[in-house]
Amino acid sequence: MKIALIIENSQAAKSSVVHDALKAVVEPLGHEVFHYGMYSPEDSASLTYVMNGLLTGLLINSKAADFVVTGCGTGVGSNLACNAMPGVFCGLVIDPTDAFLFGQINDGNAISMPYAKGFGWAAELNLQDCYRKLFEYERGLGYPKERAAVMAQNRGILTELKKASCYDMLTVLKSVDQDLLKATVAGERFEELFFANCQDAEIADYIKSVRAS
Amino acid sequence: MKIALIIENSQAAKSSVVHDALKAVVEPLGHEVFHYGMYSPEDSASLTYVMNGLLTGLLINSKAADFVVTGCGTGVGSNLACNAMPGVFCGLVIDPTDAFLFGQINDGNAISMPYAKGFGWAAELNLQDCYRKLFEYERGLGYPKERAAVMAQNRGILTELKKASCYDMLTVLKSVDQDLLKATVAGERFEELFFANCQDAEIADYIKSVRAS
Amino acid sequence: MKIALIIENSQAAKSSVVHDALKAVVEPLGHEVFHYGMYSPEDSASLTYVMNGLLTGLLINSKAADFVVTGCGTGVGSNLACNAMPGVFCGLVIDPTDAFLFGQINDGNAISMPYAKGFGWAAELNLQDCYRKLFEYERGLGYPKERAAVMAQNRGILTELKKASCYDMLTVLKSVDQDLLKATVAGERFEELFFANCQDAEIADYIKSVRAS
Amino acid sequence: MKIALIIENSQAAKSSVVHDALKAVVEPLGHEVFHYGMYSPEDSASLTYVMNGLLTGLLINSKAADFVVTGCGTGVGSNLACNAMPGVFCGLVIDPTDAFLFGQINDGNAISMPYAKGFGWAAELNLQDCYRKLFEYERGLGYPKERAAVMAQNRGILTELKKASCYDMLTVLKSVDQDLLKATVAGERFEELFFANCQDAEIADYIKSVRAS
Repeated sequence: MKIALIIENSQAAKSSVVHDALKAVVEPLGHEVFHYGMYSPEDSASLTYVMNGLLTGLLINSKAADFVVTGCGTGVGSNLACNAMPGVFCGLVIDPTDAFLFGQINDGNAISMPYAKGFGWAAELNLQDCYRKLFEYERGLGYPKERAAVMAQNRGILTELKKASCYDMLTVLKSVDQDLLKATVAGERFEELFFANCQDAEIADYIKSVRAS
Repeated sequence: MKIALIIENSQAAKSSVVHDALKAVVEPLGHEVFHYGMYSPEDSASLTYVMNGLLTGLLINSKAADFVVTGCGTGVGSNLACNAMPGVFCGLVIDPTDAFLFGQINDGNAISMPYAKGFGWAAELNLQDCYRKLFEYERGLGYPKERAAVMAQNRGILTELKKASCYDMLTVLKSVDQDLLKATVAGERFEELFFANCQDAEIADYIKSVRAS
Repeated sequence: MKIALIIENSQAAKSSVVHDALKAVVEPLGHEVFHYGMYSPEDSASLTYVMNGLLTGLLINSKAADFVVTGCGTGVGSNLACNAMPGVFCGLVIDPTDAFLFGQINDGNAISMPYAKGFGWAAELNLQDCYRKLFEYERGLGYPKERAAVMAQNRGILTELKKASCYDMLTVLKSVDQDLLKATVAGERFEELFFANCQDAEIADYIKSVRAS
Repeated sequence: MKIALIIENSQAAKSSVVHDALKAVVEPLGHEVFHYGMYSPEDSASLTYVMNGLLTGLLINSKAADFVVTGCGTGVGSNLACNAMPGVFCGLVIDPTDAFLFGQINDGNAISMPYAKGFGWAAELNLQDCYRKLFEYERGLGYPKERAAVMAQNRGILTELKKASCYDMLTVLKSVDQDLLKATVAGERFEELFFANCQDAEIADYIKSVRAS
């Protein structure tokens, strides 16, 4: 699975703590991590939590990533912004049981975690435990398993609800503030990571035109 | 402020625990609570977490409610469904500090709480503490206050992003599965509560037609 | 390792949930679980959190158990009572990181967990995660490991402090309210479990005399 | 009420955050705070969590303080050390509900909190909420109140158990490692705070002799 990592400006100093914890867990499970930044508070390209959401929408809908790990100070801002995007189902995860239940019940494609609130000493242990509970099991099996069918049914209904409420991503990309979008795709490694993995030619073309503008 | 309460089927047995805690806190503050159900597991009208989201979208966009308190077993399902709706900004709240920070930083119009996961003995104390931290202060002042301006700016950008990504609510209501919508507005007290408070004639008319169909 | 499980009266209905979670984790690691009760709310022998502490002191000091898993509604009562006993170092554990850090830093011989407060749906997952973090690693290695030496030194000083503050266990057993002690060793399976594992002849003799009185 | 604050070396940098939060809550309630240090990581007198426990025992048993607020990185070390002392009943408090329930059910005379684990951004809010839940209500009333009598009875039995297990404090002071004790009473403001408030002449004399040795 292609897992994208997105870090917001207020927590950029923790970028490598999160990145290291994520890689330590998911690489041995055979997944790849694509770190879209921020990499440090000094990055020239800055991402707000709103941009985290827009970037998540871009990565998921273009299939450049199968799953996005993001967050912010409390995790709530990125959670709101991600879930504003078509096709993105982003769970707020605080502890390992949250991670497991989100994987089994909601089976979404993004998580947002708090990297400031509650993030004290030894928080890297909790990060790893959460990632492990999310990525080391097959997801979507339900918990308890006897309720798998009704849980899958509700996920399907939620997916349809979201299709009724959101424009498709290409439309969103075209109608959103273009300066915001340009800043969202300005990360140091964005070009390298995105265009090699994007599986939607129209979206790729549009993002190229925005970057060139 | 008009605060709507929405309880999902899996947690319907806790309906009065949540309702009592909410009223105990917000009525002395001068707010009104409108309980849209479920009222008990035996209600003829059943609400799933997806329907919680759709109902939240309806109440917020029609201004029938200023704020929605909802949730589900983990809080995540309702959080996803609410945030799929135009104009809804729903925070997942677990502890009092979450509630306070959501009010000050994100200043949304809905919260989702877990009523099963982590909800043990004396959980009614935490419910009250969370409501108090959310409703007894002026919201949107930022935390820390020195960051109020940048936080307000980000909220504005998120609001614009969501306008770019979501259809208006009337369109959502018309395009969503009509059986789902009909079931969503079938609660025992829906008619009484909604039409007296709805401030959007087009939405009210459409909901009437759906209920009559 | 011989792990004793002790459940207090207010949480006796959860006895098998806790027992099952503990066995599921520690038996595959080669440890044995000795369940001293309560087994159900209907047990004729009832244990209060104070008796949990006294029983923990008895089991640890007689070496009938190497480690005690106990708790109560909030975990605090049993924590207080256990730590009142000579030679018992009982950590209050709420989440997996607590369990890991207690094992690595404090390296005690008992834990107390809350089985009511915060104990909601899916809490059995957290129980298992906590036990795993405690029992699947070598304990006492420090966290971070660079601080292992100073952590071990502090544990040694704490052990000496406790020797200066507490009477030896046989003295405690003789001076404590004898009705309380008799009720503490009255569990249905106490005789079978304790005398087969007790490694202190004087303590065993005294307990026999109390039970016979 | 005289509330003593004791901060351990690993968290000494947070001394004023904790002190400020405690004063902000309890002074308006009419309580006094006596800060025994550490005041900063640079203090010449260093306190380990073991010394926190010994100092807590000294302050409570001499009635120099009515209540002690302490902690360490996880809160567990100080909790263990405090509860090793005669007459000290120290609850580990992590969230406001813990604080409230400890006050109502266990009605102890000390709390230990984690100042590193889980202590992230905005943690000062949680500190204040915990102190408020502990100090703004009459304690020992039980929760729920219908269980007040049985809770009070268990506290009485625990108090008796502890009397059976622990030496009196003067004996502890005399038998504990005298270098440890001397370092424990070496804080910059110890002399000023302790001797003005100590209500036990024998303990005061003994501490004077240790300090003079």
